[in-house]
Amino acid sequence: MEVVCLPRLPRVAVCGGTHGNELSGVYLVRELLKVQKETSEKAEEKRKKSVLMVLANPKAVQRCRRYIDTDLNRCFTHAILNCPLPDKPPYEMVRSRDLNALLGPKGSRDAVDLACDLHNTTANMGLCFISYSDCDWICLHIFRHLQRQMPDIPIRYIHFDVSNKESYSLDSVGKHGFAMEIGPQPHGVVRSNIYTAMKLGVQHMLDWVHFFNSGTIFEGGLVEVFTMVKNIDYPRDSETCNITAAIHPQLQDRDFCLLHPEDPMFQTFSGETLRFKGKEPLYPFFINECAYYEKGIALSLARKRCVMIPAIRGQTEQEEQANEQGFASEEEEEE
Amino acid sequence: MEVVCLPRLPRVAVCGGTHGNELSGVYLVRELLKVQKETSEKAEEKRKKSVLMVLANPKAVQRCRRYIDTDLNRCFTHAILNCPLPDKPPYEMVRSRDLNALLGPKGSRDAVDLACDLHNTTANMGLCFISYSDCDWICLHIFRHLQRQMPDIPIRYIHFDVSNKESYSLDSVGKHGFAMEIGPQPHGVVRSNIYTAMKLGVQHMLDWVHFFNSGTIFEGGLVEVFTMVKNIDYPRDSETCNITAAIHPQLQDRDFCLLHPEDPMFQTFSGETLRFKGKEPLYPFFINECAYYEKGIALSLARKRCVMIPAIRGQTEQEEQANEQGFASEEEEEE
Repeated sequence: MEVVCLPRLPRVAVCGGTHGNELSGVYLVRELLKVQKETSEKAEEKRKKSVLMVLANPKAVQRCRRYIDTDLNRCFTHAILNCPLPDKPPYEMVRSRDLNALLGPKGSRDAVDLACDLHNTTANMGLCFISYSDCDWICLHIFRHLQRQMPDIPIRYIHFDVSNKESYSLDSVGKHGFAMEIGPQPHGVVRSNIYTAMKLGVQHMLDWVHFFNSGTIFEGGLVEVFTMVKNIDYPRDSETCNITAAIHPQLQDRDFCLLHPEDPMFQTFSGETLRFKGKEPLYPFFINECAYYEKGIALSLARKRCVMIPAIRGQTEQEEQANEQGFASEEEEEE
Repeated sequence: MEVVCLPRLPRVAVCGGTHGNELSGVYLVRELLKVQKETSEKAEEKRKKSVLMVLANPKAVQRCRRYIDTDLNRCFTHAILNCPLPDKPPYEMVRSRDLNALLGPKGSRDAVDLACDLHNTTANMGLCFISYSDCDWICLHIFRHLQRQMPDIPIRYIHFDVSNKESYSLDSVGKHGFAMEIGPQPHGVVRSNIYTAMKLGVQHMLDWVHFFNSGTIFEGGLVEVFTMVKNIDYPRDSETCNITAAIHPQLQDRDFCLLHPEDPMFQTFSGETLRFKGKEPLYPFFINECAYYEKGIALSLARKRCVMIPAIRGQTEQEEQANEQGFASEEEEEE
């Protein structure tokens, strides 16, 4: 089987606190920064220095809120990054441009090679990769590496089918990128087991990048991908818009367990059961995520697919130089 | 055994949304208000009308936050209720006076007979009564009634040993009062099982009051009470004051399981275990409650005791009239 040869990943960014009340990422980034500072004079210097640790929304972190003015993790579309700034821009609109300058610019050759953005959810989702691509071999190989290294934790790959231009999250600024989403953990709380899972996940990701950059060949194979199909809102009162039901106890915490038409979906506050009215069984996720009440999402639904990924290896220095020369001559041609 | 005869409880208040992001109480009060409205013309009118349903902090509910300016549930001391209002008073300081006028005044004969304030916690505490008294026979009898009626849910009675004058929470405004605290539920989220437990708890409480007011005799007996001994803060960085550890995975979710000296208590973000340095085993509760990070409380510790409660019954109308006349003549004497 052919081995696909891909550019190495010298510049990696790990971001936390994009949502200021998702505390595993906040405390992990702080911890990694501390370790980086302590070891910067030592042997590991070279490897560690290549990882950029970023606390993405420090003001929101300080106030332990998701955001100050608007959701930072919706600000990284080409349109929002490049439109003229309004007179009194929301804090996160300004911050997204700073982050785009630091880690991007999005879509450019200067962007970091890999951006991993750390998130928590109140949903019982285990560890999830959330990515805009189902054919980014780098993300899919890292995902499979974590699945193998962390067999005690359920790990899934969620695919949001959105173009790069319309992709809105911080991780979309990197050449490759994904959100690492772990739950269940209440926002504003840090739970040791969730923090430790995230720490392990980040370590295994950085290990994989190190192996890849050192020339290791990774075998191809099949990977399960959950592609998002649609969101479902809570039942709401037509006058007040207040929700009139909660997730049904038989659905609560059953993220990624197949939901069939007519399965219980909601329980109204008066005690009535409302059922799933879909036409095909689908996989629910983000069930009862705290931050999505305001977005009108009670849960999301996905189809499960199998994706074949090829064997890959990082380019050698010679291959990279040849590539660079190719780029350079292309650019000259453009001028 | 002697039966203690106590004044009936014609005026009961059930409050929710004192903390605007504790959603079980918010949605339960809304639901009960809806039912009250629908049935106000019907047979149950008399009984239901005597229950006052209150959404205590509507502004915080609207923004799904614990509070706007300051924690409403710390505003009901005699000192805060009665001091001169500052020029720009915090919203909750004004609101606490409105609520004191509606349900109190605290400590007066006009106060509601029983105030039950609904709360949620991120801690795995089941259903808890929180009260300032370990000899309020009304609260203790209601507690025992719920324990018997809801055997599937762990139900405990927590006693904060604070004088009535210094008591700070909304429920302290009633002649009798307690907080009904249920978890685990993330703030900003409503979980069906927690909502349903709260709904059942309130129904059984109102049933008990109905029985009591109708002359039922309730047998005495022993009741377990957890009396709060002290709070323990997170380990913190001396410079930044940021926490440096999370609750240890072996302690997380083990509320009301006896904690012995040298048991694991915290796990630092670098992975080290810190142990409980107490001199006696104590019962932990409010383990990893979200709202207490800012208050410097990682968990609280209690001693368990057994309290003997007497058999009680409500006064008959004749007894009450005799009592009233007693009151009246006392008041005349005072004048």
